[in-house]
Amino acid sequence: MYKINCLNPIAAIGMNIFTDAYEKTENFADAQVAMVRSAAMHDMELPEGLLAVARAGAGVNNIPLDKCAEKGIVVFNTPGANANGVKELVIAGLFMATRNVVAGANWVTENKGDENISKTMEKAKKAFAGTEILGKKIGVIGLGAIGAMVANACDALGMVVTGYDPFLNDAMKAKLSGTVATTDDLNEIYKNSDFITIHVPAMDSTKKMVGKAAFDQMKDGVIVLNYARDVLVDDDAMEDAIKAGKVAKYVTDFPNFKTANMEGVIAMPHLGASTEESEDNCAIMAAKEVRDFIENGNIKNSVNYPAADLGVCTAAGRISVCCKSSAGVAEKLSAIIGETENVVKDTKGDWMYILADTKSAVTDEAIQSVAALEGVVKVRVIK
Amino acid sequence: MYKINCLNPIAAIGMNIFTDAYEKTENFADAQVAMVRSAAMHDMELPEGLLAVARAGAGVNNIPLDKCAEKGIVVFNTPGANANGVKELVIAGLFMATRNVVAGANWVTENKGDENISKTMEKAKKAFAGTEILGKKIGVIGLGAIGAMVANACDALGMVVTGYDPFLNDAMKAKLSGTVATTDDLNEIYKNSDFITIHVPAMDSTKKMVGKAAFDQMKDGVIVLNYARDVLVDDDAMEDAIKAGKVAKYVTDFPNFKTANMEGVIAMPHLGASTEESEDNCAIMAAKEVRDFIENGNIKNSVNYPAADLGVCTAAGRISVCCKSSAGVAEKLSAIIGETENVVKDTKGDWMYILADTKSAVTDEAIQSVAALEGVVKVRVIK
Repeated sequence: MYKINCLNPIAAIGMNIFTDAYEKTENFADAQVAMVRSAAMHDMELPEGLLAVARAGAGVNNIPLDKCAEKGIVVFNTPGANANGVKELVIAGLFMATRNVVAGANWVTENKGDENISKTMEKAKKAFAGTEILGKKIGVIGLGAIGAMVANACDALGMVVTGYDPFLNDAMKAKLSGTVATTDDLNEIYKNSDFITIHVPAMDSTKKMVGKAAFDQMKDGVIVLNYARDVLVDDDAMEDAIKAGKVAKYVTDFPNFKTANMEGVIAMPHLGASTEESEDNCAIMAAKEVRDFIENGNIKNSVNYPAADLGVCTAAGRISVCCKSSAGVAEKLSAIIGETENVVKDTKGDWMYILADTKSAVTDEAIQSVAALEGVVKVRVIK
Repeated sequence: MYKINCLNPIAAIGMNIFTDAYEKTENFADAQVAMVRSAAMHDMELPEGLLAVARAGAGVNNIPLDKCAEKGIVVFNTPGANANGVKELVIAGLFMATRNVVAGANWVTENKGDENISKTMEKAKKAFAGTEILGKKIGVIGLGAIGAMVANACDALGMVVTGYDPFLNDAMKAKLSGTVATTDDLNEIYKNSDFITIHVPAMDSTKKMVGKAAFDQMKDGVIVLNYARDVLVDDDAMEDAIKAGKVAKYVTDFPNFKTANMEGVIAMPHLGASTEESEDNCAIMAAKEVRDFIENGNIKNSVNYPAADLGVCTAAGRISVCCKSSAGVAEKLSAIIGETENVVKDTKGDWMYILADTKSAVTDEAIQSVAALEGVVKVRVIK
């Protein structure tokens, strides 16, 4: 019986994916599987028996990926599962920036005691006059699941869209509408856009990427949207840019103490993926990824170990190995576990994952020998 | 010199369309032309010299159309000029209904003193969880300039769109995206839709059209959007429908004292066309319509007289006649004004407009004879 600990509430439709071979535990220390959304895991002690952490969502900056990798704990996320939910809120954010809907709605609430409100508003509304997005230029930084959807939706609403992604490939291009342009020069996005929307993950290399050098190139009156993570934007530089009239509005779904108190900021409390549909999609996807990993050793959408897929095991046995990329474990493996039928092995950064089907059942002795190899952090007998 | 009185501020880019042959007057009583947006004209005394009222916008329920027609005053509007501005706010309204952005943004403002707001919001945001529009069914009532744009935008955002318009014709159909369905049964819209958006003019025949009988057919939890006019919805029936859980949200750009105080209503103070672009487009279109009417007698986009277009006059003379449809004026005209080169005549309801180019200059005597004909309310020598 595998034990699952939910560090955040996970949608029931997803938890129902788990069969009777699994049970929920309230005790993290007992768990083989941790299901998580935004709970901060960096300071948690990771249980010895933990095999997988599944993030129902895309962002994983709440999870200690390296520490997990070192213990052979595979961390999953669910890219794309909440993309439409975020995309729709980005579109809402465009209009919140251009049309003053929050101030307008609040005006009606504040004046609901006025019996002549229908007439009064005709004079008052001047304060909420806005602009349109039709024909305006938007730059989309990052063309992953969310960025691509945002680009296509903006295109459909009549904006002139240019996308940038340092990892852009043909498969990603194929997901874009025909009238979405791409550039390999991020400065082009900064220079030409009336709107800039950021859809890249928070990593050391992307922290504060939108800083002074970026703002200096932007058009006066640009509107910047950040539905990715607050750390992508240099808040001090943003404050200067707003004060200087460079940035007209900063729309963010990740306010912090600084930006929540900044003039010119429209902030929502991280509502991007907070929809029934997104939570359902993420929970289902996370649960399926976990089951395929626990039951078959297959890895899909891990952020610290590479993908691996041998389907359901029809061989005599199957083992999985998490190890250091540089340790040469793969070369030593068949000598220990005997003849193999299928093997996949791949690396992600410093870490390697090997999944191997064997022609005869794997002995306890062999397992112990593999586990003793230098650089091996986890060995598991799947079958 | 033609005198123009602006009953509301009109965008400068539109007023610049008028040449030196026109001048602005502060005095309505002196005006040949009245430019208006939402000013209430029903109780105003109409000057004898007034030739045209130009509404920079689509809705004309602030203008006494019949009273104008009876005095031969042609009332223009600018259909389509503000359609994109309204369309974009309708899309914003969809998301305001599904995503609680106003409450979410207000939460951030209210909690900006919290130094740990980034963490606090992760727990608080549950209150603002929403749903997505992707794959949901929306019924669009009225497929004019705005309705058609709304239908296409919803389609582009992945909604399942069905439109209804009692005046639907092939030209209107041709403006719809291929995957927008239409129906000639309004009840189908009421029965099947998750969202219903209303885009019909306010007329006697459309007042309170969305009332108890309509609500009774709707799905539980339907979201109703009204960016057309408040009178289209029966507010008492709406209140009942909201209380009964039939209507989940009523999003309106036309709050009145009742709806502004109703639970479940998201209201904006008539911001639909309040964009720089819409105001510019409307002002330009209104001014062009007025100039073509004053200088050439041509009518485009009048709501109380029919369209007429003879281009610029190259004949010896041109006169225009506003008269009752039933009076047989057209038949008597050539006998009085002599041989004509081109004539257009058409009716709109009770009223007829005749524009005629003559082979010789029209005499004062002839004009007086035409003016004396029964049913004639205005005669004008254009050239």
